[in-house]
Amino acid sequence: MSKKWVYLFKEGNANMKELLGGKGANLAEMTNIGLPVPGGFTVTTEACTEYYNQDKKLSDEIVGQINDYMSVLEKECDKEFGNADNPLLVSVRSGAKFSMPGMMDTILNLGLNDETVAGIAKATDNERFAFDSYRRFIQMFGDVVQEIGKEKFDHVLEAAKEKNGYKDDTELTADDLKAIVVAYKKIVKDETGEDFPLDPKDQLLMAIEAVFRSWNNNRAISYRNMNDIPHDIGTAVNVQSMVYGNMGNDCGTGVAFTRNPATGQKKLFGEFLINAQGEDVVAGIRTPKDIDELKDIMPAVYKQFHETAELLEKHYKDMQDIEFTIEKSKLFMLQTRTGKRTAAAAICAAVEMVEEGLITKEEAILRLDPIALDQLLHPTFEAAALTAAELLATGLPASPGAATGKIYFTAEAVCAAVANGEETLLVRKETSPEDIEGMYAANGILTARGGMTSHAAVVARGMGKCCVAGCESIKVDEAAKQFTVGNQVFKEGDYISLNGSTGSVYKGSIKTVTPELSGHFGQIMAWSDEFRTLKVRTNADTPKDASVAVGFGAEGIGLCRTEHMFFDEHRLPSVRRMILSESKEQREKALAEILPMQKEDFIGIYKAMEGRPVTVRLLDPPLHEFLPKETKDIEALAVDMGFAVEDMLTIIQGLEEFNPMLGHRGCRLAITYPEIAEMQTRAIMEAAIEVKEKYGFNVIPEIMIPLIGINEELTYLDKVVRNTAEVIRAEKKSDIEYLVGTMMEIPRATLIADQIAETAEFFSFGTNDLTQMTYGFSRDDAGKFITDYKEKGILPNDPFQSIDVEGVGKLVEMGVTLGRKTKPDLKIGVCGEHGGDPKSIFFFHSVGLSYVSCSPFRVPIARLAAAQAALSNNKSAFTDK
Amino acid sequence: MSKKWVYLFKEGNANMKELLGGKGANLAEMTNIGLPVPGGFTVTTEACTEYYNQDKKLSDEIVGQINDYMSVLEKECDKEFGNADNPLLVSVRSGAKFSMPGMMDTILNLGLNDETVAGIAKATDNERFAFDSYRRFIQMFGDVVQEIGKEKFDHVLEAAKEKNGYKDDTELTADDLKAIVVAYKKIVKDETGEDFPLDPKDQLLMAIEAVFRSWNNNRAISYRNMNDIPHDIGTAVNVQSMVYGNMGNDCGTGVAFTRNPATGQKKLFGEFLINAQGEDVVAGIRTPKDIDELKDIMPAVYKQFHETAELLEKHYKDMQDIEFTIEKSKLFMLQTRTGKRTAAAAICAAVEMVEEGLITKEEAILRLDPIALDQLLHPTFEAAALTAAELLATGLPASPGAATGKIYFTAEAVCAAVANGEETLLVRKETSPEDIEGMYAANGILTARGGMTSHAAVVARGMGKCCVAGCESIKVDEAAKQFTVGNQVFKEGDYISLNGSTGSVYKGSIKTVTPELSGHFGQIMAWSDEFRTLKVRTNADTPKDASVAVGFGAEGIGLCRTEHMFFDEHRLPSVRRMILSESKEQREKALAEILPMQKEDFIGIYKAMEGRPVTVRLLDPPLHEFLPKETKDIEALAVDMGFAVEDMLTIIQGLEEFNPMLGHRGCRLAITYPEIAEMQTRAIMEAAIEVKEKYGFNVIPEIMIPLIGINEELTYLDKVVRNTAEVIRAEKKSDIEYLVGTMMEIPRATLIADQIAETAEFFSFGTNDLTQMTYGFSRDDAGKFITDYKEKGILPNDPFQSIDVEGVGKLVEMGVTLGRKTKPDLKIGVCGEHGGDPKSIFFFHSVGLSYVSCSPFRVPIARLAAAQAALSNNKSAFTDK
Repeated sequence: MSKKWVYLFKEGNANMKELLGGKGANLAEMTNIGLPVPGGFTVTTEACTEYYNQDKKLSDEIVGQINDYMSVLEKECDKEFGNADNPLLVSVRSGAKFSMPGMMDTILNLGLNDETVAGIAKATDNERFAFDSYRRFIQMFGDVVQEIGKEKFDHVLEAAKEKNGYKDDTELTADDLKAIVVAYKKIVKDETGEDFPLDPKDQLLMAIEAVFRSWNNNRAISYRNMNDIPHDIGTAVNVQSMVYGNMGNDCGTGVAFTRNPATGQKKLFGEFLINAQGEDVVAGIRTPKDIDELKDIMPAVYKQFHETAELLEKHYKDMQDIEFTIEKSKLFMLQTRTGKRTAAAAICAAVEMVEEGLITKEEAILRLDPIALDQLLHPTFEAAALTAAELLATGLPASPGAATGKIYFTAEAVCAAVANGEETLLVRKETSPEDIEGMYAANGILTARGGMTSHAAVVARGMGKCCVAGCESIKVDEAAKQFTVGNQVFKEGDYISLNGSTGSVYKGSIKTVTPELSGHFGQIMAWSDEFRTLKVRTNADTPKDASVAVGFGAEGIGLCRTEHMFFDEHRLPSVRRMILSESKEQREKALAEILPMQKEDFIGIYKAMEGRPVTVRLLDPPLHEFLPKETKDIEALAVDMGFAVEDMLTIIQGLEEFNPMLGHRGCRLAITYPEIAEMQTRAIMEAAIEVKEKYGFNVIPEIMIPLIGINEELTYLDKVVRNTAEVIRAEKKSDIEYLVGTMMEIPRATLIADQIAETAEFFSFGTNDLTQMTYGFSRDDAGKFITDYKEKGILPNDPFQSIDVEGVGKLVEMGVTLGRKTKPDLKIGVCGEHGGDPKSIFFFHSVGLSYVSCSPFRVPIARLAAAQAALSNNKSAFTDK
Repeated sequence: MSKKWVYLFKEGNANMKELLGGKGANLAEMTNIGLPVPGGFTVTTEACTEYYNQDKKLSDEIVGQINDYMSVLEKECDKEFGNADNPLLVSVRSGAKFSMPGMMDTILNLGLNDETVAGIAKATDNERFAFDSYRRFIQMFGDVVQEIGKEKFDHVLEAAKEKNGYKDDTELTADDLKAIVVAYKKIVKDETGEDFPLDPKDQLLMAIEAVFRSWNNNRAISYRNMNDIPHDIGTAVNVQSMVYGNMGNDCGTGVAFTRNPATGQKKLFGEFLINAQGEDVVAGIRTPKDIDELKDIMPAVYKQFHETAELLEKHYKDMQDIEFTIEKSKLFMLQTRTGKRTAAAAICAAVEMVEEGLITKEEAILRLDPIALDQLLHPTFEAAALTAAELLATGLPASPGAATGKIYFTAEAVCAAVANGEETLLVRKETSPEDIEGMYAANGILTARGGMTSHAAVVARGMGKCCVAGCESIKVDEAAKQFTVGNQVFKEGDYISLNGSTGSVYKGSIKTVTPELSGHFGQIMAWSDEFRTLKVRTNADTPKDASVAVGFGAEGIGLCRTEHMFFDEHRLPSVRRMILSESKEQREKALAEILPMQKEDFIGIYKAMEGRPVTVRLLDPPLHEFLPKETKDIEALAVDMGFAVEDMLTIIQGLEEFNPMLGHRGCRLAITYPEIAEMQTRAIMEAAIEVKEKYGFNVIPEIMIPLIGINEELTYLDKVVRNTAEVIRAEKKSDIEYLVGTMMEIPRATLIADQIAETAEFFSFGTNDLTQMTYGFSRDDAGKFITDYKEKGILPNDPFQSIDVEGVGKLVEMGVTLGRKTKPDLKIGVCGEHGGDPKSIFFFHSVGLSYVSCSPFRVPIARLAAAQAALSNNKSAFTDK
């Protein structure tokens, strides 16, 4: 039995997007609800796949069906393909399952040839129109199907205009256009060696094949890569009889949204042109009119369109983006699709549609893109100011928001400038933990090296600070205090501007605007909280971050890193003394200096969290990160500590590691130097007791031991922590509670999670490290090959951005299952970057985690994503895109 | 019901080692087969555990049973504990399940006090003997039970001798000894504040407790750590009535082996002393006589002993190590145990016992320690020469064997000296791949840094070359061409000697001897091959290594690394040009220079392997390893390649990585530069075709792609390799077969092994990297904390030495199960260091691997271990130690 490769519009419906593409399915749907859609049919996406399977040939079966359906269409329209007297002309458009605007090709007026052009001239009584259509068709066909450079055609057109002294295309006469058609056909003959195909059936099949081929043009592939669209689903082709908006002043064409796509306001929003074809609206040669004006010009058509728009919105229960054409006062619907909108508009429309009774709260939540919320939380450039800006370079959009300021090349210089009241940006080859203060002080960060999970990117996202990372086209010379892009040199104090949401770097200062969170936003968050079962905590190391996160609805801190506190310039000397101590006693002395400062940190954080749980991770990074790197700093430290410079160098070199990521860090530090864990435990506990006594917040600190891979690491440190905590409880006569738990970030830990859960009171998955070790990728080094991996299709998704379900996810599941085998109620969270990624949140929900923890600015995103996960309760809901 | 804590010797047997300890179980066994064993009983290991559980107290129940059994013993011996007229004296000795010679404490003559000493004097008619025993008892009790420094007692003894002008202890008269007893008791009173305990029952309980305590003295704990003996099994205590070898010339004491423990020769081997106690034999004050002489001195006793020894060997079916005492011409057996022996003796005895019909081939195989075979394969120091040697320092026994030579501090210097005919040792802070040639040329390698799996250790083991690694007490100054230990300075050209089996570093040159493999060795190997199911391959990168391995019985190459070949000084320039190429064309040109050289390598290796399978791993290490590190070398390379030095530096810096272990290496290189994989495939295939044509060896190369973690990495490279191989087969009109497979060394690969097996034709587990990533340990850096881990009991076994069954092993099992789910017959091997480790081989056998691959010198070990695994077919057989 032969397969059905072609569907008339009336044979399809809106649910058949996979087979008919989005455009085809919606044309079918509109046809079936009785809207005025020009007749046509859709060649399916399966035909596209078959085309590629047959080595880029249309099978006889497919060709046969296309011809059959063409005949049906001829009957329907009462016109005939290639008939000089009553010709049928069609458009041929791509339409894949997922919208890929502008990525693939379209051909209009197909069916024109030397004979039918006359028929059209006669039928429309407009010879100029007919030949203009014909020359447009040849140009489009030559460009799209025959791959002849567009500029060759443009050149002829321009020459004709010049010769005649015309300014506008519209001044060209019918005769001019006839001559141009001749010239165009010559171009085709010269370029392809063959005559322009005059048989409409040939034209049609060639056009369909060209659309199929365009599925794999470079820009379509890149678009799919960027938007996580599979490469193997193919596109459908829609063949539709032409209608014309350019046959006179009773004609026109336009596009409209059923609501304002920027704000969400419920009011038709769009524009139209009288006597024009669709491409004229897009081309921007004439200025379109506001859709409201149509009311005055063609009141009946406007009324019909307005009603149709309302009907479509009700029918689809969502904001529609509609294309229409008016041919001789008759309205035709050419396309409807879900309207793209800003995050603000999405939220406004969703909430109002619930209020209107159009959709349910669940539907409102499920249709919002959590990632898009990010737009609402960060500063943006003022639109007007941006227009004039000069784009210098593009890096990775490492941390969203817009920032402008004078550039400085060291953290110290930034801090000094900020102290002088300047707005600054920190520019570095790459950042290191030593730069923390400068990163905090600057408005934004720009680095030349490093990926989406480089130090700069991770820290900046944690701070909610704009960052463009890995901007490889800028050459940073930190010593000379300048960077270059091409020939341009930017020196310390020069202004630039960064868009961390897009990765763009602009010359000069651009005004930014701070967004305000609307009531609709709060409503969506409140609804999300009704549905989600996953708790949402935040990663926060400072009272300020903690407060921001609470404002965004964080229910606790899932990760309070203690190392950033160690980089404070007032503490570094003590920290360094601690590291370089030659005996336990010396080390304890240095730690005693740090203790009151750490305690103050925790007091501030506990106060900001007002009794919500706080998970504090004990010191994690390798100690050499805290030591100076520059010769002058090493010399200064040697003098300060009374060491010979040489000895100091030897000690520092001794602390260097081949693979610090796999070296002496995490719990391994605390096992070598239990006194560090003891000091930190003391700071954590004393602060909690003090905050409880003074402010009445009943803090239950959760002490988290990082990098556990061996059960005995945990049992050993659990004892160290508990013994210290008990001493403090006794000293202070406090009955304050506390938990001791562990990170799950070493693959081995997940494999023996049943053992670990014997001791641990909670788990928190550190999926950054877990991903690094499971893949054997260092995120700092992966930049060297990750681009190749993406280009070659080896790694379609960045596993540091969304969790790798089949690999890393298997370990997560194993850890959860084994951990809960030992302790069925074990509290399990995640505090890696994935904690704020919606796709990953779906996975974490599906494996039964208790909470996710993410950077403050991700908290709203996580709340929404968690609600979506609970509502769909289906691992694949999001991965299906 | 009360538990039985005490067993009379006649209540036990040889199988009760766990409960009675080795010594107690054997005393029981000897008692029950009717041998003359002085009466006694054993307090169980469970009592020891109970003692610790009760906070180091003996429970009333245990004390009651001890007293009860003491009464039984009194009746048996017809003597009475504490009876002045007919006193029973006992020895109290420790005895754990596993022999821990000299680690725990022993007390003799217990039961002596001021009254019973007189009874003994009367019974033996030897007052001097009685008081000498008494003073020895007080000293031993004071030392062991009351923890009074031994030297305090020695001081009194020496003073008495000096005062009287005596040279020997034997010159002390009964009166002298009486005075010494008084002085000893005063020491006890002064030190403990209490009188020396005179009640024998008190003495007994105190002694038993002391033995229990000695289970946890420092040297016992270290011994258990070193020998993988669990800490929680406790020791038993044997209480046995005393017999005396020092009551006159019709008395004596001795030890003997039933066969020669050095050679295995079947002949009584031992020594004895007339009129002496056991400790005199050990103390070495008098020179013992050869056991043969006993035949002349006491013919009847000798005959009885000889028969008893034969009986015991037959009974235990193994060589016995026997202690005996002759009291007034009566023979008493005090201990028998399996005799410790050299590897040579073990093999000789095992083979001969099979020939004698004493044991089966299976038993012979199961009782050999595979690791001990290593002794037979490497040079050793001449015993006599070693006696005089000065030990300088001790590092890690990184690669076995003995070596002596002049020290040099760079690979170049070693090579130059070897060219001059010198014997050399390479001394480095740590080695890097650049040192390969020097490592190859030197007799041995000494490094100051790095663990058992550091570069130096791994490479040296691969070469079968002596290496002491991580010898931290030597300070290497490569620039000054010297190292220091304490105050001693050793300069280039000075002689030192290394024992890679023990980690010892000696001053000066020590003569070495090369061992010869006996026919017994071959017999054991042949029997092993009969039983084992696991194939044994070798890791070999050179024809020489391959030949050595074939000589040892390797059945193929499981890992032929290609990177060592790249370090050859004649190739490095081309390799560097390849790395620094700026276009694919440039790179292909450099690769074309390398191709013929690689091809020659493979031809040599294929010839050496004579048609056995050869698995070649494509290039694995990060490219920057091949680039120069020293400024002068960089400058030279820049000149050579026509680069500015600055640009060269930038390029080299650009290739540096934060965590090279997790960086751009393995298959990631081949994905970025497929032309490298293409060149290597060409060299592998062309060489195979040539060797087949010229020499008739039907080589089936197995091309192995390293570091796969993502299925698409493999499918991509599989295509690159196969396309190249097919081109060559067509070019050469050859139908040669080949396989394409992958390393399993990234944790993620084991989790998706079912996918990977769709493409891979074989798996080879790289358990070094798999262990590193599963633990998140870099073996280069773990040295910083691994010592602490061992001391704190966190990591009792080094997971790089024996596979971590519960963590890494779980991933291996998963990889095997998933891989075979896709391809039930999938060939799966292991080519990490674990491939030559017996414990790990047991595990690999248990999970059904097809083969293990190890360094050439490990091949015999692996063959034996594989046979043992097959025979015991029990994962825990070896881990039970």
